[in-house]
Amino acid sequence: MSRKKRRPKSGARPSMKKFVRKRSQKIGLPPGSIVYLGEPAAREVRLSVLDYDAEHVAHRELRSVDETFPFKDTATVTWIDVAGLHDTTVMERIGEHYCIHPLVLEDILNTDQRPKFELTDEHVFLVLKMLRFDTDTAELHADQISLILGANYVLTFHERAGDIFAPLRERIENGKGKMRRFGPDYLAYSILDIVVDHYFLALETIGEHIEALEHDVLENPDRALVERIQNMKRELIYLRKATWPLREAVGALSREETDLIRPSTHPYLRDVHDHIVQVIDMVETFRDMISGVLDIYLSSVSNRMNEVMKVLTIIATIFIPLTFLAGIYGMNFAYMPELRWRWGYPALWAVMLAVMAGMLLYFRRRRWL
Amino acid sequence: MSRKKRRPKSGARPSMKKFVRKRSQKIGLPPGSIVYLGEPAAREVRLSVLDYDAEHVAHRELRSVDETFPFKDTATVTWIDVAGLHDTTVMERIGEHYCIHPLVLEDILNTDQRPKFELTDEHVFLVLKMLRFDTDTAELHADQISLILGANYVLTFHERAGDIFAPLRERIENGKGKMRRFGPDYLAYSILDIVVDHYFLALETIGEHIEALEHDVLENPDRALVERIQNMKRELIYLRKATWPLREAVGALSREETDLIRPSTHPYLRDVHDHIVQVIDMVETFRDMISGVLDIYLSSVSNRMNEVMKVLTIIATIFIPLTFLAGIYGMNFAYMPELRWRWGYPALWAVMLAVMAGMLLYFRRRRWL
Amino acid sequence: MSRKKRRPKSGARPSMKKFVRKRSQKIGLPPGSIVYLGEPAAREVRLSVLDYDAEHVAHRELRSVDETFPFKDTATVTWIDVAGLHDTTVMERIGEHYCIHPLVLEDILNTDQRPKFELTDEHVFLVLKMLRFDTDTAELHADQISLILGANYVLTFHERAGDIFAPLRERIENGKGKMRRFGPDYLAYSILDIVVDHYFLALETIGEHIEALEHDVLENPDRALVERIQNMKRELIYLRKATWPLREAVGALSREETDLIRPSTHPYLRDVHDHIVQVIDMVETFRDMISGVLDIYLSSVSNRMNEVMKVLTIIATIFIPLTFLAGIYGMNFAYMPELRWRWGYPALWAVMLAVMAGMLLYFRRRRWL
Amino acid sequence: MSRKKRRPKSGARPSMKKFVRKRSQKIGLPPGSIVYLGEPAAREVRLSVLDYDAEHVAHRELRSVDETFPFKDTATVTWIDVAGLHDTTVMERIGEHYCIHPLVLEDILNTDQRPKFELTDEHVFLVLKMLRFDTDTAELHADQISLILGANYVLTFHERAGDIFAPLRERIENGKGKMRRFGPDYLAYSILDIVVDHYFLALETIGEHIEALEHDVLENPDRALVERIQNMKRELIYLRKATWPLREAVGALSREETDLIRPSTHPYLRDVHDHIVQVIDMVETFRDMISGVLDIYLSSVSNRMNEVMKVLTIIATIFIPLTFLAGIYGMNFAYMPELRWRWGYPALWAVMLAVMAGMLLYFRRRRWL
Amino acid sequence: MSRKKRRPKSGARPSMKKFVRKRSQKIGLPPGSIVYLGEPAAREVRLSVLDYDAEHVAHRELRSVDETFPFKDTATVTWIDVAGLHDTTVMERIGEHYCIHPLVLEDILNTDQRPKFELTDEHVFLVLKMLRFDTDTAELHADQISLILGANYVLTFHERAGDIFAPLRERIENGKGKMRRFGPDYLAYSILDIVVDHYFLALETIGEHIEALEHDVLENPDRALVERIQNMKRELIYLRKATWPLREAVGALSREETDLIRPSTHPYLRDVHDHIVQVIDMVETFRDMISGVLDIYLSSVSNRMNEVMKVLTIIATIFIPLTFLAGIYGMNFAYMPELRWRWGYPALWAVMLAVMAGMLLYFRRRRWL
Repeated sequence: MSRKKRRPKSGARPSMKKFVRKRSQKIGLPPGSIVYLGEPAAREVRLSVLDYDAEHVAHRELRSVDETFPFKDTATVTWIDVAGLHDTTVMERIGEHYCIHPLVLEDILNTDQRPKFELTDEHVFLVLKMLRFDTDTAELHADQISLILGANYVLTFHERAGDIFAPLRERIENGKGKMRRFGPDYLAYSILDIVVDHYFLALETIGEHIEALEHDVLENPDRALVERIQNMKRELIYLRKATWPLREAVGALSREETDLIRPSTHPYLRDVHDHIVQVIDMVETFRDMISGVLDIYLSSVSNRMNEVMKVLTIIATIFIPLTFLAGIYGMNFAYMPELRWRWGYPALWAVMLAVMAGMLLYFRRRRWL
Repeated sequence: MSRKKRRPKSGARPSMKKFVRKRSQKIGLPPGSIVYLGEPAAREVRLSVLDYDAEHVAHRELRSVDETFPFKDTATVTWIDVAGLHDTTVMERIGEHYCIHPLVLEDILNTDQRPKFELTDEHVFLVLKMLRFDTDTAELHADQISLILGANYVLTFHERAGDIFAPLRERIENGKGKMRRFGPDYLAYSILDIVVDHYFLALETIGEHIEALEHDVLENPDRALVERIQNMKRELIYLRKATWPLREAVGALSREETDLIRPSTHPYLRDVHDHIVQVIDMVETFRDMISGVLDIYLSSVSNRMNEVMKVLTIIATIFIPLTFLAGIYGMNFAYMPELRWRWGYPALWAVMLAVMAGMLLYFRRRRWL
Repeated sequence: MSRKKRRPKSGARPSMKKFVRKRSQKIGLPPGSIVYLGEPAAREVRLSVLDYDAEHVAHRELRSVDETFPFKDTATVTWIDVAGLHDTTVMERIGEHYCIHPLVLEDILNTDQRPKFELTDEHVFLVLKMLRFDTDTAELHADQISLILGANYVLTFHERAGDIFAPLRERIENGKGKMRRFGPDYLAYSILDIVVDHYFLALETIGEHIEALEHDVLENPDRALVERIQNMKRELIYLRKATWPLREAVGALSREETDLIRPSTHPYLRDVHDHIVQVIDMVETFRDMISGVLDIYLSSVSNRMNEVMKVLTIIATIFIPLTFLAGIYGMNFAYMPELRWRWGYPALWAVMLAVMAGMLLYFRRRRWL
Repeated sequence: MSRKKRRPKSGARPSMKKFVRKRSQKIGLPPGSIVYLGEPAAREVRLSVLDYDAEHVAHRELRSVDETFPFKDTATVTWIDVAGLHDTTVMERIGEHYCIHPLVLEDILNTDQRPKFELTDEHVFLVLKMLRFDTDTAELHADQISLILGANYVLTFHERAGDIFAPLRERIENGKGKMRRFGPDYLAYSILDIVVDHYFLALETIGEHIEALEHDVLENPDRALVERIQNMKRELIYLRKATWPLREAVGALSREETDLIRPSTHPYLRDVHDHIVQVIDMVETFRDMISGVLDIYLSSVSNRMNEVMKVLTIIATIFIPLTFLAGIYGMNFAYMPELRWRWGYPALWAVMLAVMAGMLLYFRRRRWL
Repeated sequence: MSRKKRRPKSGARPSMKKFVRKRSQKIGLPPGSIVYLGEPAAREVRLSVLDYDAEHVAHRELRSVDETFPFKDTATVTWIDVAGLHDTTVMERIGEHYCIHPLVLEDILNTDQRPKFELTDEHVFLVLKMLRFDTDTAELHADQISLILGANYVLTFHERAGDIFAPLRERIENGKGKMRRFGPDYLAYSILDIVVDHYFLALETIGEHIEALEHDVLENPDRALVERIQNMKRELIYLRKATWPLREAVGALSREETDLIRPSTHPYLRDVHDHIVQVIDMVETFRDMISGVLDIYLSSVSNRMNEVMKVLTIIATIFIPLTFLAGIYGMNFAYMPELRWRWGYPALWAVMLAVMAGMLLYFRRRRWL
């Protein structure tokens, strides 16, 4: 293996970044300062509104945050989705209009928040992590989704302008399921459900990765595997960090007694809670498995060493004594009677073959061959 | 060992599948969608009804789900067993007629559910795992059993058309035990009891497997053992995942105060709870033991390496100096007085034997021989 | 070490049996079936009765279970000890007469029960494990003791006809201590106290065994030690399994408010609870110690390997270059001027000795010598 | 590697001191004795007062502790910062004037206190640890900050005369944020917030260090890394010891109902609590990662050993048999027919090359080359 | 290393004794039997009484236990210290006069009691462990101190006639601190405080020992270190066993509402509780550190092995091929044209030097040199 291969993949750096985000710029600022800590983005903030009740449904992409405000006071369910958090003025306007506490706004912008649930007088506030496992780099990517559930509206905030909510929006527009008949709390639940479904997706892919690792360890245990195993371990640590607090948050949410959540929604929240528990179960199982893979790797390595040693030992212990014998009769003493015997040379060969056979027998008895 | 032997057994793949089942097809569907996630089956759904009270008993195999409905309103205890979950229309009909919440139906069809207990207004809902340890592949097979206990009926759902309930059915038909005199809650308990009894069966077989592994590790510690040990570890992880939530579920069931469960049934539920605790105890013990087996294996391997090294070292350290001596007197210097001495050759042999004896003594003192 | 020595001791099998007892024969039987799961015994069931109050005391060995019944209704304290559980008719008769729930009877016969405590309307039911550490096989033997405390009687059940209760019986007969003045609850406590005292005895012997193991590991770390260490680990796992639920059981018993236990007995129960906590403490300590012993063993092995390698390396690195030099002057080139020099041979010796000295110095500097 | 390099860095000693501070001089003294346990300092105690309300603000450096007393009874918020704890008379004067319990004073002076929270009738008392990670020595430095929150004043005590509070003081003087409008409880919160922000800073640097370690382990796994890994582990242990009790303390503080903390401050305290939980999460993650780095190191080392062994084995197994063959034909037997054959020498070369090629093929098949 | 050095130090035996004390002699005795389980002592029991209130103080050494009785009913605070527990008649007399429950007396005499707290109607009963770390044997020595706090007296019992309480007695006699003005509860607290202060002392010494171990592991990792590390681990296990229940006991004591403890003493008890928590923290930290030391040791050993292997490999791979070449030209074939070439010998040297240089280059590239 050439030394070049040993360089850490450039991927190592972002994976550490996932755990620690630079906060240095915030030190000294008053708390509740609205500072975006994520990666800078060139794109514009995308605002989309979905307004519906049992009878009608309307979907609109808006240009300015002020256009969302009229929806607040209608009787219909309004879902405002904000994709892109870098424009702090947009956030401030929303915060003002929907009476969001500055600390909540700060949490929305601080994208390495742990999943959490908070209940204020007017809102239910949820921080979620949408996960995606990138098969090429074997890395988890997380997109923080903040959800605010008000009396008749749901606000969602996330960084990337992805289409993760597209199937849900379609379902509402097509009037499938109970979505249209139920209130904003059921919408919030549906968003939560989609997020947790993506956890299962990520787990499926991770499961396949672990299987592939296991296969490779058995086929060809080379050094790069240790790094891959460690990376997988780290992704599982990350996944664990994302799921345990989520369980807590959803558990609290499903127990909470608030007017914002109708009793009929409670079974659904308990169901999603069960799913999260299953995710945690699987994460813990995968952690056990990945340690198992490391154990197999280590025992493969020591096994290989053992085999190398055996070959060396067999060859050396057979030939070293024979070489000694040959050396003896290569000596130039004036008086060495054997050298002059007629059958000396063949006799020595006989002795040598006998030694060799004895050695081989010994090795067989020890099960080295 | 040839490279071919190192390929993972085809069994590795299903064992991973056991932990993660494909859910991708469900993403985007509304919650409560009745989609079967298990393996597709060609067979028909088998419906059987057992209707009994203290005086009479009747057992029938039915062709259509609608034939089960008349039993619902009789005063007798009715046990409807549904084997095969792939026909979602059957499930929907049952769901409607017995007023089962869509989320419960979803749980019944989603066959990698964790064991759980739920109490609704009209039902007790239990998810169980019937386990079977396959000695040939050293793998656990699980069949999910969902049980719904209503006012005077018990519904059970499972995938495989096995005869796991045959002994129980016979007991009822023969009128043995208290079955016929007691209500549907005692029937539900009896089913639970059979499931837990199968856990003990599985544990017995696993115990024998671990013993065999231990024996093999001591007899002939070869590489394939690591895989077998890891597989056994994984099966124990699976077993653990199946038992811990079951304990919780049965614990909750036995504490719950509901009209569906008579007070006289409570001691039986506590008894089955005790059995589950014992199963968990044994699973934990087996986990400790299997790590012990791995420790023995690893120390065997390093011990073997040690022995190989010792043989090499003994042979090499004895003969290398002697070969050097032989080399000396094989040199062709014009002026080497020893070569001409009358007793040079025998004297050299004497020196060599002395060196050899010294070495052997040294090795003995170090306890290498 | 010959291959024969590597066979597992026949003792390995029973020790696994200790953890899993065959239950296969019970599957399908109705719960509460009175089936003896222990080892079959040829002996007869031994029944003995001790009847006492402050004034008088009477001890009798009985032939039939029916002879015990008159004692039930006397005002004196009656202790009925049943040694041998294989005769299920005896058990059934007792069960009927003393109104023992079938599940309790089942627990008494099922001799791999966990220690437990149950309170019914009429009885306190305790399952205990009497432990004995067999120094020869380094194995723990457990005898299950079931205790039923009624209004004015104590029933004890155990498998082996040992004399474990002899000292207690003597104490009662001699009227020593408070036994005679106190009620059946104090008798039950005294039995519990004896059982826990035997735990300390077992721990003493195990402590000596661990010390011996530690000594052997330091003196002569050979392979058989790993097995002995693993066996000891297993016995500690077993001990742990026996003590943790006992703590729970005795804790519950000492907190329970029931007429069957007088307030004056409570401090004694708390005292025995303290003793069990101390036993658990020691078990955990021993577990830590035995891992320490394994660590010492493993580091001894790797240390030995190290020493072997050093010897090989020192010998090889000294003589391989010298042998090369000797080989050079053993060549038969027609034109090798050194061969003809007058002082060539002594000069070569000088060079060789210098190389040797240099090597030795190098090894010393590296602290290999 | 020369022996000199193996000496522990002088940094090892202070790092142990961090965990255990000499208390021997205190033994036998009555509790509540005001004895400074930190390192002696030559500097003077520095006293600074910041007095403000919404309208005005005043900052003063004072020479004597008595000058601070008039501020106590003003209606404005007063922040008295004491830098340097070695002058016990200063402490005693403050204690008397502000009615501080001797045990609290003792805690302030005892600078290896765990973070804690205490509520007395008149004060909230907090012990915090200001952390700083020194990149050169890879060590954490902690400065204990004790905070006393009274009716309208805040007292802070710390050892080093650093400028950690400078940004906060500036913010107050410039009237930025809510500081000036809010009371002393908000000031206390702000100090707490700054301390926790520094934890994130320390974590960022530690994260970079772990990354660098990981990189070095992959690039060049030499022995010094084990020490660096162990040092990092120890710093993480220290960090953990500082954060877990802090979580507890802030959790208790945010739940406490006291007049000293206004309801509007509670969300801020919960927010800082969330931050501490996040810090703990990261510390645990880093602990997992650093063990991963150790695993990579150990597998690198064993991998290297493996490679070394392979090279030795390949060279030795190729040349030892060949050398034996050469030795054979170097023997001086009178009757060795091969020696006289015309093509003997080239034939031997052919045999030797064949052996060599066979060996190389074998090694390739085993994937050693 | 000679075999003699490998014998376990005689210190190993007492250290095991510390964990398990012989109880065999007690089995069969009625509970509450007053049997001394400690080591037999030749000395007499030493009784000393200290009687004080705010105005006067008197200290007396008594010959007979009956002389202490008059002090019981005085209004002053009386502290009776009993050093030496082997005289059971003394204990019985005290037990009778002070109305001590036989089980409490049994606990006092049973000197391997866990630290505990008990509240009876008339007494607070505390069992403490006074610890001392012996630097020579690197062992902890524990002396059990039992404390009984009554209405206006404190009784203390301990085995060794040490002067551990001398500084406290002096403080009382000199009237320093609050001792004289406060009641017996404050005296009990002061004793507790001294005991915990000695824990810090022990920890300081242990910390120095761990540092020394770490230094030695880095300087000269020889085999004896494993034993020293294991011994230290064991002492930390012992320390842990002594502190965790103490925390519980003092926690319970400080929460208990009893007339025996005045409210003003509560903050002091909470303070000592905080100290114990700190001790536990440090014990856990030391446990982590000592495992770190073991890790460093193990990696040092494997590193050394690696270096040894490298030297062997370098020497062998350089000289084995060269020796082969020399062997070739030492053959006696009749027709070997090279042997007759004029520049054959120098040419061979050139080839050999080239091979050597190539090898060295290869090793350098692999970073083995």
